[in-house]
Amino acid sequence: MIKVKLVGATGYGGVGLIELLLRHPEIEITTLIAASETGKPISHFYPHLAGLCDKMVYAADAHEAEGEADVVVYSTPDGIGMQLAPEEVKKGRKILDYSGDFRFNSTELYAEYATRQGLDTDHKAPELLQDSVYGLAELHRAEIADATVVGNPGCYAVACILGLAPAAREKMIENGKIICDGKTGISGAGKKPKPGFHYPEAYDNTYAYKLAGHQHVMEVERELSLLAGSDIKTTFTPQVIPMARGILATLYGTLPQGVTQEKVLAAYTDFYKDSPFVRVSDSPSSTGHVRGSNFVNLTVACDERTGTLRIISHIDNLIKGQAGSALQNLNIMFGFDEMTGLNLPGAHP
Amino acid sequence: MIKVKLVGATGYGGVGLIELLLRHPEIEITTLIAASETGKPISHFYPHLAGLCDKMVYAADAHEAEGEADVVVYSTPDGIGMQLAPEEVKKGRKILDYSGDFRFNSTELYAEYATRQGLDTDHKAPELLQDSVYGLAELHRAEIADATVVGNPGCYAVACILGLAPAAREKMIENGKIICDGKTGISGAGKKPKPGFHYPEAYDNTYAYKLAGHQHVMEVERELSLLAGSDIKTTFTPQVIPMARGILATLYGTLPQGVTQEKVLAAYTDFYKDSPFVRVSDSPSSTGHVRGSNFVNLTVACDERTGTLRIISHIDNLIKGQAGSALQNLNIMFGFDEMTGLNLPGAHP
Amino acid sequence: MIKVKLVGATGYGGVGLIELLLRHPEIEITTLIAASETGKPISHFYPHLAGLCDKMVYAADAHEAEGEADVVVYSTPDGIGMQLAPEEVKKGRKILDYSGDFRFNSTELYAEYATRQGLDTDHKAPELLQDSVYGLAELHRAEIADATVVGNPGCYAVACILGLAPAAREKMIENGKIICDGKTGISGAGKKPKPGFHYPEAYDNTYAYKLAGHQHVMEVERELSLLAGSDIKTTFTPQVIPMARGILATLYGTLPQGVTQEKVLAAYTDFYKDSPFVRVSDSPSSTGHVRGSNFVNLTVACDERTGTLRIISHIDNLIKGQAGSALQNLNIMFGFDEMTGLNLPGAHP
Amino acid sequence: MIKVKLVGATGYGGVGLIELLLRHPEIEITTLIAASETGKPISHFYPHLAGLCDKMVYAADAHEAEGEADVVVYSTPDGIGMQLAPEEVKKGRKILDYSGDFRFNSTELYAEYATRQGLDTDHKAPELLQDSVYGLAELHRAEIADATVVGNPGCYAVACILGLAPAAREKMIENGKIICDGKTGISGAGKKPKPGFHYPEAYDNTYAYKLAGHQHVMEVERELSLLAGSDIKTTFTPQVIPMARGILATLYGTLPQGVTQEKVLAAYTDFYKDSPFVRVSDSPSSTGHVRGSNFVNLTVACDERTGTLRIISHIDNLIKGQAGSALQNLNIMFGFDEMTGLNLPGAHP
Repeated sequence: MIKVKLVGATGYGGVGLIELLLRHPEIEITTLIAASETGKPISHFYPHLAGLCDKMVYAADAHEAEGEADVVVYSTPDGIGMQLAPEEVKKGRKILDYSGDFRFNSTELYAEYATRQGLDTDHKAPELLQDSVYGLAELHRAEIADATVVGNPGCYAVACILGLAPAAREKMIENGKIICDGKTGISGAGKKPKPGFHYPEAYDNTYAYKLAGHQHVMEVERELSLLAGSDIKTTFTPQVIPMARGILATLYGTLPQGVTQEKVLAAYTDFYKDSPFVRVSDSPSSTGHVRGSNFVNLTVACDERTGTLRIISHIDNLIKGQAGSALQNLNIMFGFDEMTGLNLPGAHP
Repeated sequence: MIKVKLVGATGYGGVGLIELLLRHPEIEITTLIAASETGKPISHFYPHLAGLCDKMVYAADAHEAEGEADVVVYSTPDGIGMQLAPEEVKKGRKILDYSGDFRFNSTELYAEYATRQGLDTDHKAPELLQDSVYGLAELHRAEIADATVVGNPGCYAVACILGLAPAAREKMIENGKIICDGKTGISGAGKKPKPGFHYPEAYDNTYAYKLAGHQHVMEVERELSLLAGSDIKTTFTPQVIPMARGILATLYGTLPQGVTQEKVLAAYTDFYKDSPFVRVSDSPSSTGHVRGSNFVNLTVACDERTGTLRIISHIDNLIKGQAGSALQNLNIMFGFDEMTGLNLPGAHP
Repeated sequence: MIKVKLVGATGYGGVGLIELLLRHPEIEITTLIAASETGKPISHFYPHLAGLCDKMVYAADAHEAEGEADVVVYSTPDGIGMQLAPEEVKKGRKILDYSGDFRFNSTELYAEYATRQGLDTDHKAPELLQDSVYGLAELHRAEIADATVVGNPGCYAVACILGLAPAAREKMIENGKIICDGKTGISGAGKKPKPGFHYPEAYDNTYAYKLAGHQHVMEVERELSLLAGSDIKTTFTPQVIPMARGILATLYGTLPQGVTQEKVLAAYTDFYKDSPFVRVSDSPSSTGHVRGSNFVNLTVACDERTGTLRIISHIDNLIKGQAGSALQNLNIMFGFDEMTGLNLPGAHP
Repeated sequence: MIKVKLVGATGYGGVGLIELLLRHPEIEITTLIAASETGKPISHFYPHLAGLCDKMVYAADAHEAEGEADVVVYSTPDGIGMQLAPEEVKKGRKILDYSGDFRFNSTELYAEYATRQGLDTDHKAPELLQDSVYGLAELHRAEIADATVVGNPGCYAVACILGLAPAAREKMIENGKIICDGKTGISGAGKKPKPGFHYPEAYDNTYAYKLAGHQHVMEVERELSLLAGSDIKTTFTPQVIPMARGILATLYGTLPQGVTQEKVLAAYTDFYKDSPFVRVSDSPSSTGHVRGSNFVNLTVACDERTGTLRIISHIDNLIKGQAGSALQNLNIMFGFDEMTGLNLPGAHP
């Protein structure tokens, strides 16, 4: 059994991985670490786990925090993983980090990201950053397999990049500009209560936020530009809708002359033919169809009347957008079939 | 008191007008007509009205259906108003229709609309159609004041047209193309239960629909093209989100060289300076801020980095998108201040 | 115009009263006071009020806080009203308080309440307490009309007391014991975000709380015992359900020998024949039927097979359970018809 | 592998079993039958299953409907299973039925049930009925292991019976009367859209229904009376709350003299010590803690002040209340550990 030490166990991203690993035959969690909710079993903080996972949660400086581990997963905010990872790597452990710490494999790109986020621009582990791999399996399977350090992608970024990757590579985006109109469930903001997420404020309500720039834009532009071989600029409008789980990203670009809906559909089908979690179609889908699972449903729905490339991308923000991608990466990093423990549907309805 | 006969009283559009008129000092409802739910007081079908409005609902062919009326309001699907209106007009009554019957004041345009909708292309009241007025008060106040027949606009159309009218008139939309990414609450589909609106299917779920073309696109293109003096083509993506009430329309275009966020904001502020229901801002808003009221909140949020005009338009689909616009039109048609009975907030939360 | 100074303007209880008074012809708000959200217009904190109520919110110690007022309304937690009211009464102002401060018109009862709540048992304004009136208009109309100080009832208490008052007075509750199974929307907890009210935690979830005793039980027992002329003991189970607004209280007792559903229904109909906001029926209703309004819907549904008195009580917790009862009381205190400004339905759906 | 033929595959109860069996190592579905949605893969009707279960759905009279099977599961309304089961039993197949057809193992009791439900009182398979077993594993494990025909319990019945079984057996219910105040998510009504379940009607709303008697009461009374050795009469108030999944049943009785909270808690803990899916506690829980899983959370919360036995029972109505109990029964019928395929949590949040 591959052993996982999970840092940041008591957030939604942490508990999501715990849930998934409870059904995995080859990977187990050995050690749970958290910042503030410690000293009690994880099932105290998440009672749905009672009897299924009652492991103790320890503080990072507890002596039990050392743990046994083949890999350390950081389900933590920006800035934690890069501080703690070097010591773990010295012990021969692999690293998977959920934050922006290892999504940009150069100190220059990281500094740009940090600037946008108002963070310290100095990366704390530049030597690890250099060889880190962006953990979007559908684009970087081979590098992930060989990586020591993997940076798990942002939830919106997963929906946007997978939604536009084939179009970018096949030059189906005219003039290098795309629009991403994103709608997210509220769990994307984590478990900390805030005024806008208070049930009476959030129900029957929807609103846009971070109009000046969202932290995932840079990943999207980097990955799509790499695929296109030229700059792709993104206008991104994140919006909160009254759901707990799910992202719907409606993606728009200008179709080059002669590119039809049919050609786009064919390109997408081909691009993802070996990606078992991506379901391409020209029919409407819904976030309900991917809720609770690691699937990505892409609807190709170009508007030929107006010459518009239009792709609708559906994921569960906490699975394919977070813990599911993490497990998919772990599977690849340790040589298991990438669907292991993930080839299951969510519960409907 | 101005007297209203309401046809289609038992749908959401009808009951919405009843609610609003209960607080209007100058307009009263005298007669309620419906297709199937008849023979009982309206409060039987909508018990929240018990003790406040207990008027009988009659079938259109009941002898009580004649009623006393200065105006007949058709809160009915396409095709009803145009059949019944001519006889009412002969009696000297004005007409306000919620459907597409009187939104296009030429038989040619109507035929195009009917074709797209799969309806009979022959208009049944061409003489009324000729002089009918599109009932979006912010654009057609003066004509509405003089009109005999007013076609109330579609809910999405209200959000899109008001969201882009200043930009269209001021030539702030490059290359004549816009994207409207619309999110609607489920009441927009009316009160008839359908599988996609069944609570267990609709909760925690979102999806796009009518990707091949929505019935409101034609109104949007007609009005915006008129304002721009040139063709404006719209890519429209309607999406259902788990709300009962509200529309959020995120509107995108390409900014012409030299047009900045500041200039756009100034143009919008100026355009709506005499429109009391339109609140223009450069701050984020929410559908919650307009829920239960006739207000339109417009956020001007251009993305100068990518050269993108971006406007976020918020309405209550059942008020400004339907019964509220209807009452605003009635106020104008009968010479009252357009805010009469409408200068109230919804209830928060 | 009667002038109101509102203390605690920025909570749900305060904003609820602002909304209601915007449609009242005889009562106006002159001064808004809050503890922390001050120095800006109320429409800054509640943007749905923009253009409708843009009054400044002041701190209690600002010089503008004196204000002009015929009555001061405290929409504040326990302990505030009793400290500030005496000085206002000296100025000849009446008092309406939303908290437990003036619900028990004796220092002994207050001390018992305070003990249960873990509050200081010394009342700060015993001379006002002595003559204060419990503000449930259906039971205490005449005393409210003459009162200087009125204690607005708790939201659950309104639902339970009105649901059982006729049965209590008519000796239709065997053995002095009742069960109140209460379900509340989350707005009942106020606007402060907490973990259990975070949207992702609260949606699709329901749970009981305060099983050791809820603060409203004492009001319920006091009022029902007074009506019955003997002790009535209440087992109360408060439960949170995923709604913003509304309380459904299902009330159970044992029917005395010979008391039938028919007799209970007749007793209820008679008891409330002069109470315009109470709608008695033997048909199922819903919180939706009272949402946004000051009505109370009572369904009499005894189970004769098991000899059980069963009443289902429906209110909007923020209207009849709070701001609506407050306005009903203000109407009575100042000699207006008690329905003034309140004879309106909510918006459906 | 044990082979299952599933009749009624396209309802929520059917798809729930499909989801669960996808993760079961020893039981597989071979044949899917439905009444109207046929001729296409199950993933056409439930797209979340695409790529995971794409089996064809056949009509009952299709020649493929014969199938290979060790057991036939009827996820069908009353009256179907009893007609089709006899022929299957002749082939040596076991039967599990979700409806009331096999919950009462005598024709007299069935006739009483049928009368209450307005059904034909003649049972169509009396010889099977005679030996059928009530499929509530916690009470009838041994008989289920030996049964040919098992009648899966009603969802409310599971919550109520498990919530009161220890109290009934231990004589902790005075005077033979209990109150069950039930709150259910809307999926309990199945997938067929109806007016009260239309999203705009069901959101932010709650209401009681079937006040004259619910079909599950008879099961509850039968099982509890058997345990108590004397008649237990139930007043049952079913209520719909705006959730998709979950049942919260708040159960009340009168405590006999001398029975304390402590004794009740001890009795419950002991009663369920060998039932791995029942979690007993004296702390509040929530339906969220059991959502997506087969667990039952019971909170023992007696009110000693009023002498009231109070138990709060939480289940997922579609898992422990339906498909999960079904799988637990299948495990027992075929000799697997009863937790096989069920020892997993739902996804949080």
